[in-house]
Amino acid sequence: MPNFLERRNRLRLLFPQTANAALFFDAVSIRYLSGFSGSSAAILIGTDSKDDLLLTDERYTKRAKDEASDIRIEIDRDFFKVINKQVTNLKLGKIAIDPKLINFSTAEYLQKELNLELVKFKDFLSPLRMIKDEYEIKQIKKACAITADTLWFLINDLRPGINEKQIARLLQEGFLKRGADGLAFSSIVASGVNSATPHHEPTSRILERGDMVTIDCGALVNGYHADMTRTVFIGTCADWQKEIYDAVMHAQNLGRKKLRVGVSAEEVDLECRNYIDNANFGSYFVHGTGHGVGLEIHEPMFLAKEVKTKLSIGNCITVEPGIYLPQKGGVRIEDTCLVTDGEAEVLTPGSHEIICVA
Amino acid sequence: MPNFLERRNRLRLLFPQTANAALFFDAVSIRYLSGFSGSSAAILIGTDSKDDLLLTDERYTKRAKDEASDIRIEIDRDFFKVINKQVTNLKLGKIAIDPKLINFSTAEYLQKELNLELVKFKDFLSPLRMIKDEYEIKQIKKACAITADTLWFLINDLRPGINEKQIARLLQEGFLKRGADGLAFSSIVASGVNSATPHHEPTSRILERGDMVTIDCGALVNGYHADMTRTVFIGTCADWQKEIYDAVMHAQNLGRKKLRVGVSAEEVDLECRNYIDNANFGSYFVHGTGHGVGLEIHEPMFLAKEVKTKLSIGNCITVEPGIYLPQKGGVRIEDTCLVTDGEAEVLTPGSHEIICVA
Repeated sequence: MPNFLERRNRLRLLFPQTANAALFFDAVSIRYLSGFSGSSAAILIGTDSKDDLLLTDERYTKRAKDEASDIRIEIDRDFFKVINKQVTNLKLGKIAIDPKLINFSTAEYLQKELNLELVKFKDFLSPLRMIKDEYEIKQIKKACAITADTLWFLINDLRPGINEKQIARLLQEGFLKRGADGLAFSSIVASGVNSATPHHEPTSRILERGDMVTIDCGALVNGYHADMTRTVFIGTCADWQKEIYDAVMHAQNLGRKKLRVGVSAEEVDLECRNYIDNANFGSYFVHGTGHGVGLEIHEPMFLAKEVKTKLSIGNCITVEPGIYLPQKGGVRIEDTCLVTDGEAEVLTPGSHEIICVA
Repeated sequence: MPNFLERRNRLRLLFPQTANAALFFDAVSIRYLSGFSGSSAAILIGTDSKDDLLLTDERYTKRAKDEASDIRIEIDRDFFKVINKQVTNLKLGKIAIDPKLINFSTAEYLQKELNLELVKFKDFLSPLRMIKDEYEIKQIKKACAITADTLWFLINDLRPGINEKQIARLLQEGFLKRGADGLAFSSIVASGVNSATPHHEPTSRILERGDMVTIDCGALVNGYHADMTRTVFIGTCADWQKEIYDAVMHAQNLGRKKLRVGVSAEEVDLECRNYIDNANFGSYFVHGTGHGVGLEIHEPMFLAKEVKTKLSIGNCITVEPGIYLPQKGGVRIEDTCLVTDGEAEVLTPGSHEIICVA
């Protein structure tokens, strides 16, 4: 089990100059800081650990006790009432919040009804959440292993005649059979011309010889996500397809090699982008190079222009360049990688070379 | 397909006295108002339909065109830039928003950087979304039929020796096999003493003779949710189990019968609650009686104390009283129901009587 108190203690170091407490209402932050996985809760982090407080309602009395064993729990549907009591008792006037993770209605209530001063910390938890601990790495590795295993098993079986929706269903069944809790996100299965759409939703389009098929999928394990993409060819691979595939493959390889401690997010992005630019496909690489993966499928750090954050040991991050030729087709290759003290570890293993099946 | 323009036109009637436009950033509202199902978007509803605008990024160019065919689309990662251009061009100063559906950061940006006056409408879309149209009812019926079919098939097969997690996996596989897109929510499978926890997460606890097992599950179809619960008995049913089962069964039956046009949400809640109170189990019924079901698994209207909203034709709503005896066990019976001009239609059919399996 993770050491939730240690996470809260690390968070506590971030706000003492400007606030007396921190407050979260979103499920992901609450799970990260306490272990509690219920759908309705709030967590107050005091300046002292004895003041930490988890609030939830009677549906979750037992789960809260089971999952959040190192924090005081109060069961009450009226979170604001309990928060008010606590901030009054402890004389807490300034509360640190992440303004992206709190809704406007709640923020106004805290300000106007409870007379609290809200101190805004954008991406408040990101510095902590970006560095995965041992427990988190274990979950992500498991999710990634299930994902890669399922995907390769499926790729091996791809034939003309199956449709995109059927492939998506087989992925989901494969994940469950291998012990996943579910999907990290709705699988993308994009065949033929559909592969020109980066975030295509599976249709009943039937695979044909000559298609390229992009499959982007991930399993979910104990709240942790995996993310992996491969583009494969049905039967044959035309020259124009090989050209964009090779460009993406080399760019992705360079991106993975660039994932080293001290390198900035924008440098990794640029490494992939420059290669694709030089291959004259720059305008067809229409998204960022990668993103953090953890309790959310997309979380900081983002490998994109102007992101100065530097890589550290324990970052779990995707590298996923792509080229999408409108009305023709596209290629994306993606791995979830773990930044280490040497070369990044690929958690979604398997070939990056051209594969023709059927 | 639903008539999205008509939905936007209905919304337009709600704000003309106080605002010149409405703005949403959350995926559910955007899907409801345009059909677009991507993960990153914004929608601006003008005072005139020609000013309606859907914003998304390049990953979704094709999907936006396919799904949102009756609204102007702009592809740009910088939503605020486009919104600013539009509000400046159209001289829109007052923007209607739902303060629960917009984060504090976005609200402050709109106010301080774009100089917009935000006019707050709590539960802005709820009056529309509570009344399901023909398309929505069809999706919910399909999701409910898959749910009921899977659940009854599974109940018939329950035996001592299987564990809660395995049951949850079989449910998920059954939903997929029958054509669902996935789970409406993580299934609850609570056996023996675990059934005392309303929102129990499945464990590896193995079913034993004498257990009561509460299974609360739902399939997802085209974004629409189903919700259904039954408590069944393994082999035998003890007197204390029968006593709480009968109380819940009668309360649920009364609740369903009470679902009639013009009755208020709190009256339905009271109908169930009074019956359980009179059976002396009132303090063990620790949650509301029901909730709306649609693009979200929990959405207005809520059948709970002090909710004065009256039922209308087209409401899709659960009735799910429960009794939970700490350290002993619990019973919940739940159906998703459709309010009609007569008696409510049960969309998750099947017996409400005691069932002993194995």
